[in-house]
Amino acid sequence: MTITLTAEPLTAKRFAAFGSVIDTRSTDPFPINNGLTERYHRLAVATAEPAPASSADEGQAETIISIFLGQPYSLPAELWMLERHPLGSQAFMPLEQRPWLVVVAPAGEPPAATALRAFIARGDQGVNYAAGVWHHPLIALQAASQFLVVDRDGPGNNCDEAPLEETIVVTTTELP
Amino acid sequence: MTITLTAEPLTAKRFAAFGSVIDTRSTDPFPINNGLTERYHRLAVATAEPAPASSADEGQAETIISIFLGQPYSLPAELWMLERHPLGSQAFMPLEQRPWLVVVAPAGEPPAATALRAFIARGDQGVNYAAGVWHHPLIALQAASQFLVVDRDGPGNNCDEAPLEETIVVTTTELP
Repeated sequence: MTITLTAEPLTAKRFAAFGSVIDTRSTDPFPINNGLTERYHRLAVATAEPAPASSADEGQAETIISIFLGQPYSLPAELWMLERHPLGSQAFMPLEQRPWLVVVAPAGEPPAATALRAFIARGDQGVNYAAGVWHHPLIALQAASQFLVVDRDGPGNNCDEAPLEETIVVTTTELP
Repeated sequence: MTITLTAEPLTAKRFAAFGSVIDTRSTDPFPINNGLTERYHRLAVATAEPAPASSADEGQAETIISIFLGQPYSLPAELWMLERHPLGSQAFMPLEQRPWLVVVAPAGEPPAATALRAFIARGDQGVNYAAGVWHHPLIALQAASQFLVVDRDGPGNNCDEAPLEETIVVTTTELP
């Protein structure tokens, strides 16, 4: 059986169970720098938990900044797995203003296919997956695209993978 | 007396004393997500120190993600102050691919005008100011532009300002 997910437009309200949306529509700004800059403050919080005490690894948990260069998917696209980061949040922000796809499922046991949600993000919208939230790896669209990524680095296992048991295809009715 | 700073092209090596450059030229990537994504890993580390024990404020230091919308400067531009964040790093990443200006001075006592350095950043280059490094507020160019900002939120004073005693003008010979 093939399950088709049709992506909904990404909004902070729809995404609230999974994390934060990073865009200028999610809050009102305040002026800084003598009024020359508007600050849209605290759109997301980066979390980085220490490793469990049982971890044999050494070192401290840190919040790091990386760039991902993602090859584009063609839609409809077949999904291939979900992953989660139990010890920290992970934020993605597009740097080339192209729309992209976000596929998530609630934190907890590896999700049933029916628990998946798909969102189409505008090119000026990022997300911050809360720790433990299942999500598909980066789905860029249209062209190879850079994303700024803010996530946890440090000791302990911070990546679980869950293969998808059924054939799941994601598509969208239109691009923003 | 007017001191004119001519911005140099931003490179990781030139900026090393002040923090990190966030771009895909600063490191070699490695493949993730079955080869569909290249990860330029750990281009910067976000730091967020606790407040000094004397602080009357409550709460924990956090690393947060915000968006700044900066009005453009015209060049040559007169600088008006420097600031520093003693308790945490602050990263700026352009979201609209326009060049921008970075003006810094070493951490420590409020700097002499002759200690200032100016860099012209490409639209695909961000920086992470190390804690304590003096820097001018955001200098967008060409048009009002969004930047992703990763910095510290929490108790204690995390912003010192230093007015500039002399007239300092920044310019660039060409835009990237």
